[in-house]
Amino acid sequence: MVNIKDVAKVANLSVATVSRYLNQNGYVSKNSSERIEQAIRELDYKPSSVARSLSKKQSNIIGLIVPDIKNPYFPELARAVEDMAWSYGYTVVLCNSDDQIEKELLYLERLSQTYVAGLIVATSLLDPSVYLSINTPIVALDRIIDATVPTVATDNQKGARLGGEYLLTNGARNLLCIGGPHGLKTADDRLTGFLEATDKHGLDPIVITSSFDFKVAAKAIEQCLAINPQIDGIFASSDTLAIAALHIAHKLGKRVPEELQIVGFDGIALGEMVSPPLTTVGQDLYKMGTAAATMLIEQIEGKEIKQTVLNIDPQLIVRGTTRKEAAK
Amino acid sequence: MVNIKDVAKVANLSVATVSRYLNQNGYVSKNSSERIEQAIRELDYKPSSVARSLSKKQSNIIGLIVPDIKNPYFPELARAVEDMAWSYGYTVVLCNSDDQIEKELLYLERLSQTYVAGLIVATSLLDPSVYLSINTPIVALDRIIDATVPTVATDNQKGARLGGEYLLTNGARNLLCIGGPHGLKTADDRLTGFLEATDKHGLDPIVITSSFDFKVAAKAIEQCLAINPQIDGIFASSDTLAIAALHIAHKLGKRVPEELQIVGFDGIALGEMVSPPLTTVGQDLYKMGTAAATMLIEQIEGKEIKQTVLNIDPQLIVRGTTRKEAAK
Repeated sequence: MVNIKDVAKVANLSVATVSRYLNQNGYVSKNSSERIEQAIRELDYKPSSVARSLSKKQSNIIGLIVPDIKNPYFPELARAVEDMAWSYGYTVVLCNSDDQIEKELLYLERLSQTYVAGLIVATSLLDPSVYLSINTPIVALDRIIDATVPTVATDNQKGARLGGEYLLTNGARNLLCIGGPHGLKTADDRLTGFLEATDKHGLDPIVITSSFDFKVAAKAIEQCLAINPQIDGIFASSDTLAIAALHIAHKLGKRVPEELQIVGFDGIALGEMVSPPLTTVGQDLYKMGTAAATMLIEQIEGKEIKQTVLNIDPQLIVRGTTRKEAAK
Repeated sequence: MVNIKDVAKVANLSVATVSRYLNQNGYVSKNSSERIEQAIRELDYKPSSVARSLSKKQSNIIGLIVPDIKNPYFPELARAVEDMAWSYGYTVVLCNSDDQIEKELLYLERLSQTYVAGLIVATSLLDPSVYLSINTPIVALDRIIDATVPTVATDNQKGARLGGEYLLTNGARNLLCIGGPHGLKTADDRLTGFLEATDKHGLDPIVITSSFDFKVAAKAIEQCLAINPQIDGIFASSDTLAIAALHIAHKLGKRVPEELQIVGFDGIALGEMVSPPLTTVGQDLYKMGTAAATMLIEQIEGKEIKQTVLNIDPQLIVRGTTRKEAAK
C-alpha cells in the first residue's frame, strides 16, 4: 500500500514536509505543494491515520518547569522524568522559573507556542486559570494546581507527621521546626503534619520559617539555637534546611545525634553525603518523576489517564542524625 | 508611519501572523494572506527592517546541553547562563545528555531543528565535526570542542597546580590525588597540573581515578585510605570527590584538617554546607556562564565576537579542610 514515504520519495521531499502539507500545520512552499499534489495523484495515495499521528508526534519534546534548578531536589526529579520520557522517545527540556512569576509565565507561553508536546510543571506561582488556559497537555508535579489537572504529589502532611513522631519516639522533647516559606502549600502542609505529632504529645515546639536558601536558613537557625540551647530535636521542612541545621550544630559544638537529633524531608542524595548522614522523610522522587512523565505522555498520545491525582506516600529513611532509642 | 501593528489591526490578525507572512517562515492560510495583502495596499505599508529583525528574534530560546544535571556544578553554571540570557530577553532550556552520545546527538538535532536561536554545549562526547556541522550558533562551555568554536573554559591545569601547591604549603607530604574519569580532558588536565606541583617537590603521590559519582568515589577512597593510613593530604579533581573523601575521613575517625587535609576543585555551593567547609580551587562559575551566554547572543545577533576563547583563571578558596600553616 502506498504510504507517506513513497509520496515523499516521488516528490523528492522529506517526509516531514509531506506531513506538514497533509496536516496543514507548517509552512510548505508553493513549489513543494505542487510536487506533493502531483505525487499523490500519480501514486493514488490515500492519507491514513498514520500520517495524522505522525504530525501529532511531530513534537517529541516535553517541557519541565521547575522553580529552582540549584535546589538538589529538582535535578533529581528531572532525571526521573527524563528516564521515563526517553523510554517513550521523548526528550525533556528543563526550564528554571527561578520562583518568579514573569519567568514562569514566559516559559509557559514560549514553550506552548513552540515545539513542546506537553508540559510538566513543578511550580505553583500562577493562578490555576493560567495553567488551564494553555492549549498543551499539562501535568502538575509536587504541587497541586487544580483538581482537574493531572497531578502527582506527596502526602506532605502525613510525611511530616511521621518525621515529628520519629523524633519524639527517639526521646526528643524540646523541639524546633524549621518550616519552609509561608504560603507555599508544600511547606504549610508539612508544618501542619509536624504539629499534629507534637500536639498529640501535648508539646509546644518552637517554629521558625525560612526560605530554602542554605545561607539564609543557617543564619536563622544559629540565632534560634543560641537563645534556645535546650533544643534537642529539629524537624526541618526540607533536607537542605536540615543540612543547614547540621552545619550549625557542628559549628556550635553540639554532638549529633547524642545532644541534638535532626530529621529532614525530601530524601535527596545530599543527605547521604553529610556526616552523620541525614535521617529524613523520603519522597520517592524517582517514582514521582516517572509517574508524571507517564501521565503526560498518556495525555499527549490521546490515551485515557488511569488516575488524575496520584498521591505517593513518603517513607522514613533512618540514617545517622537520630538516636534509634526504644519508644518511651 | 504605518507599521506592522497597523497592518495586523486592519487585517484583524495577530502581529505574529503578519510577521510570518512578510518573512515567509511559517504557515499562513490563503484567507489570511489575502486580508494581509489587502491591508498592506490600503495602508500603503512598506515593510521595514524592523519586521525582518522581528523574525530573526523570533526564536528567543537558547538551548544549554549539560552532561549531568544531578552534578551540582551544572545547575550553578546554568543559573549564570540564564541570568545573562534573561537580561537580553532570551529564555534558556536545559537539556541533560546524561553523558550519553545518543542523547547528546538527539538533543543537538531536535533543538537545532526547532525553535532555538543558539546552543551552549557543556558536553564533549561528540566529534568536533558534529558540532561544527550544526546550522545554529554554538558556544562551548567548560569543554574545548574545536579552536574555531567560541569557548569559555577554566585553566584546569593551572588550578590543580595551585591546589597541589597549597596542600604542600600546609605541610602535607603523603599525598593522594583523586582524579576524575580518565579520558575526560578536564580531569586529565587537573591531574597533570597536580603532578606538576608534586614533581617540583620531588614527591610521588598516590593517584586513583574515579567517576564523579559520590558512592563510587567514596568506596574507592575508603579502600585506598585503609591500605594507606599515612596519607595526610588529598587533592580531589572535583568538589563532589572531595566531599566523598571528607565523608570517608569522618567515617574512619580521621580529624580534618588536623590529621588529613583536603582540597577540592570547582567551588560549588555544596562545599560551604559540609563540616568543615571545603577548601577548594574555585571556578568562577558565574563568570563562565554569563560569558558563554554573552558570546552566544553576540553570535545570534550578528555582532562581532570580541574573543573566541576565554580562559578564566580559577582561584583558591580557603575554608576549613586545610591547616593554614606557614610555608615550610
